[in-house]
Amino acid sequence: MTAINALFAHDSTTTALGQIMGRLHWDQETMMPAGAADQRAEEIAALETVLHARRQDARIGDWLAAAEPESDADKARLALLRRDFERALRIPGDLAAELARLSSRGQGVWVAARKAEDVAAFLPTLQEIVARKREAAAALADGGDLYDALVEDYEPGLTGDEIAAMFDRMRPRLVALRERIMGAETVPAALSAHFPREKQLALSEKVARVFGYDFGTGRIDLAVRPFSSGSGADVRITTRVDEADPFNCLYSTIHEVGHAAYEQQVSDAYRLTRLGQGVSMGVHESQSRIFENQLGRSEAFCHWLHGAMADTFGAFEPGDAAAFYASVNRVRTGYIRTEADEVHYNLHIMLRFDLERALIRGALEVADLEAAWNERFEADFGLAVDKPSNGVLQDVHWSAGLFGYFPTYALGNVYAGCLHAALRADLTELDAQMARGEMGAATGWLAEKVQQHGSALEPRVVIEGASGSAVSEAPLLDYLDAKFGALYRV
Amino acid sequence: MTAINALFAHDSTTTALGQIMGRLHWDQETMMPAGAADQRAEEIAALETVLHARRQDARIGDWLAAAEPESDADKARLALLRRDFERALRIPGDLAAELARLSSRGQGVWVAARKAEDVAAFLPTLQEIVARKREAAAALADGGDLYDALVEDYEPGLTGDEIAAMFDRMRPRLVALRERIMGAETVPAALSAHFPREKQLALSEKVARVFGYDFGTGRIDLAVRPFSSGSGADVRITTRVDEADPFNCLYSTIHEVGHAAYEQQVSDAYRLTRLGQGVSMGVHESQSRIFENQLGRSEAFCHWLHGAMADTFGAFEPGDAAAFYASVNRVRTGYIRTEADEVHYNLHIMLRFDLERALIRGALEVADLEAAWNERFEADFGLAVDKPSNGVLQDVHWSAGLFGYFPTYALGNVYAGCLHAALRADLTELDAQMARGEMGAATGWLAEKVQQHGSALEPRVVIEGASGSAVSEAPLLDYLDAKFGALYRV
Repeated sequence: MTAINALFAHDSTTTALGQIMGRLHWDQETMMPAGAADQRAEEIAALETVLHARRQDARIGDWLAAAEPESDADKARLALLRRDFERALRIPGDLAAELARLSSRGQGVWVAARKAEDVAAFLPTLQEIVARKREAAAALADGGDLYDALVEDYEPGLTGDEIAAMFDRMRPRLVALRERIMGAETVPAALSAHFPREKQLALSEKVARVFGYDFGTGRIDLAVRPFSSGSGADVRITTRVDEADPFNCLYSTIHEVGHAAYEQQVSDAYRLTRLGQGVSMGVHESQSRIFENQLGRSEAFCHWLHGAMADTFGAFEPGDAAAFYASVNRVRTGYIRTEADEVHYNLHIMLRFDLERALIRGALEVADLEAAWNERFEADFGLAVDKPSNGVLQDVHWSAGLFGYFPTYALGNVYAGCLHAALRADLTELDAQMARGEMGAATGWLAEKVQQHGSALEPRVVIEGASGSAVSEAPLLDYLDAKFGALYRV
Repeated sequence: MTAINALFAHDSTTTALGQIMGRLHWDQETMMPAGAADQRAEEIAALETVLHARRQDARIGDWLAAAEPESDADKARLALLRRDFERALRIPGDLAAELARLSSRGQGVWVAARKAEDVAAFLPTLQEIVARKREAAAALADGGDLYDALVEDYEPGLTGDEIAAMFDRMRPRLVALRERIMGAETVPAALSAHFPREKQLALSEKVARVFGYDFGTGRIDLAVRPFSSGSGADVRITTRVDEADPFNCLYSTIHEVGHAAYEQQVSDAYRLTRLGQGVSMGVHESQSRIFENQLGRSEAFCHWLHGAMADTFGAFEPGDAAAFYASVNRVRTGYIRTEADEVHYNLHIMLRFDLERALIRGALEVADLEAAWNERFEADFGLAVDKPSNGVLQDVHWSAGLFGYFPTYALGNVYAGCLHAALRADLTELDAQMARGEMGAATGWLAEKVQQHGSALEPRVVIEGASGSAVSEAPLLDYLDAKFGALYRV
């Protein structure tokens, strides 16, 4: 076997094992009996031990040195395998297994603490996670910035300083828009009806199909936290139901269908290889966000959804499609990031970014995190946090060791803004199609321009190739100003 | 680290990875989207590659040579690890991965062929599986009998000749009992009502609880084939529903709860080690069979179940508890092994044993299997097979490469007969307890005498220790003669 073939065979097996890890996490959050949590942590640690050893396998270095690529895809795959190998070599196996075990256990501790509204019950575990992540970051950073070293896992090539600069440019326009809206006389109505769980689930399945989700290679289940999991031929999503607020279930589903589409639409040629998954969390989030917001919360799609909801639930208020569109896009200051409207969402991210960057850089202690969160939240949102599940305990990420992940959500919004501008320019019939519930032209555009490439093109390359211009936050902010300016007449 | 500690740490990780394999198989049969079948086969093959390499790891030989056991449990664990290592060394890694891939794919092909009643669609895959299993058997047998080498995976220490001799002793008494029953004037009534699916599932959950199944570390789902999966703190079972025949669901559930109890009750000290699972398929089946038959189909438990069914479904015929007990134990010649009564069951096994032994020994070609099955079935059961799903396509085992497994079902019945005789002698209040739905004394006896030992005692040692006498088919045959002689007045 040639070096490149041996390397690629090794990669395919590692990728398949990575898929198995995804299935374990999915199972943990959907199907696993509660009493299995500790055992699952051991299982995940065992698989992580194997994966880590494979990623550090010394033969990879030899194969990389001798590999002769025959195509651009080969070159892209080799570049990623080289980067993975160099990063893996820096993390000791014990630390990798311990981090895997901790993040599995940490999620269980977080769920219990959140339910009990007991921050103190979570802090010792979080402290341990932060300590181990800082250890890992120091090993990866090689003298550089600790936080940047962690961001690299989610958005390769991006630095904390670049993120901070982007956020500094976004913040004034978002704050100004928010203030105009808060002062507006227009106040869209909320829905006021009971939306039964089973009907919500049936409608969310219908909406998932409308957005092209393939149930032949996927499924929808309930979980505390909506997520998408898996690549290629097995991409599962979860959703949740609030019987007073059907948008929670519906827009969570559309969001996760966006993530899933990226994984389901990757070129068959890349399946079960290092190229066969989304290239970065930012690009991933751009797909979920454009599905959810620029398409799913558009006036045209809301027109169709209003009819579909009336078919499913019977008549409800608002009975007028324009008022319904305003309800979908109601701007309200709230505690919960995942329920935030498009205007507030990025402000939630900026808060988390600053806090987690300070934690990892050692500028903030875990013991002081809750106070820091509550102070910053009140300053930014004008609301005092009333309970930990509305504050520092609301997100799973830190309990799972995902530091450096949060900013990619805002980056995804920025990418979505760029893609949306280009998609609108290309698809002149888009609004007419969406008003009929025909999303195929839009989802097809994204599949062709972005999703099919998997990890074969770098994040910026794929976004700039699709949108035809340099990445910038301007299209997103322009879109928000125009949409919400019109809705609120401000 | 000492050699024994290093070896045991290696074992614990391997055991945890084995648990993951169990979860993948469970998922495949319960939750997995249909389109993921090929990808899942690759995932399973990848994990099998890892497991196989771990089982062959040369360090195991060094650790075994230097290991100093400190307890009987250590000695038992070392003996099993030595045996596993010696067997693993004989199977090439490529063959192990290919077998894993084939058995995953094979099950998909089998499901489709069975649904289409198309034996020909399954034969090429089966041919490949048999060829690879023979290859594996030859590697394991080292000049000995190929079939014996495969049986060793499921019932260590047992040979095909011993099984054949036991079956020769059982057959005349079973045939004679069957003939007496077929000629009897007593014909128990069948149930005649519709038993709604949701109510069956609710009752089967209740019955599972009565038999001590721990939902904190388990769950019940629907699958084509009832099975139990996992060890320790994550032991899941499946069942199925036939709305005309509630016994299908209820007794499948009790059967699988017996398997699950064995895995849930293993001593905590053995969790996630080579000792932390049932010691053999025969002992495993003894637990499921004694739960299902000697306890679950006893007159006393049927009395309780009759009341529980009336509570669940409303009044149904037979309304009399004695007639209900006779219905539960109705003896009928049928095609399907898993639906067979206690009198016919072992005859189904004898058929499969002879055919699969001939396949593996090269005395029967895959192309001739269906004809051989149909001829033998008609001779033994007096019925012509009407369609493949009632004949050679009814069981999943061969499609999954499980050759040598079938005889352990009959051995389990024999073991259950031995255990039941001893349990009856110890628990003088058993019938009174079971009539009240109190199964704790019986399940506790089995947990203490059998289940807690996991793999720490050899199969015969644990059965003979629990029953207080040598393993023999006589107690089972005596029990069947007495029970069915009384029921049918023959």
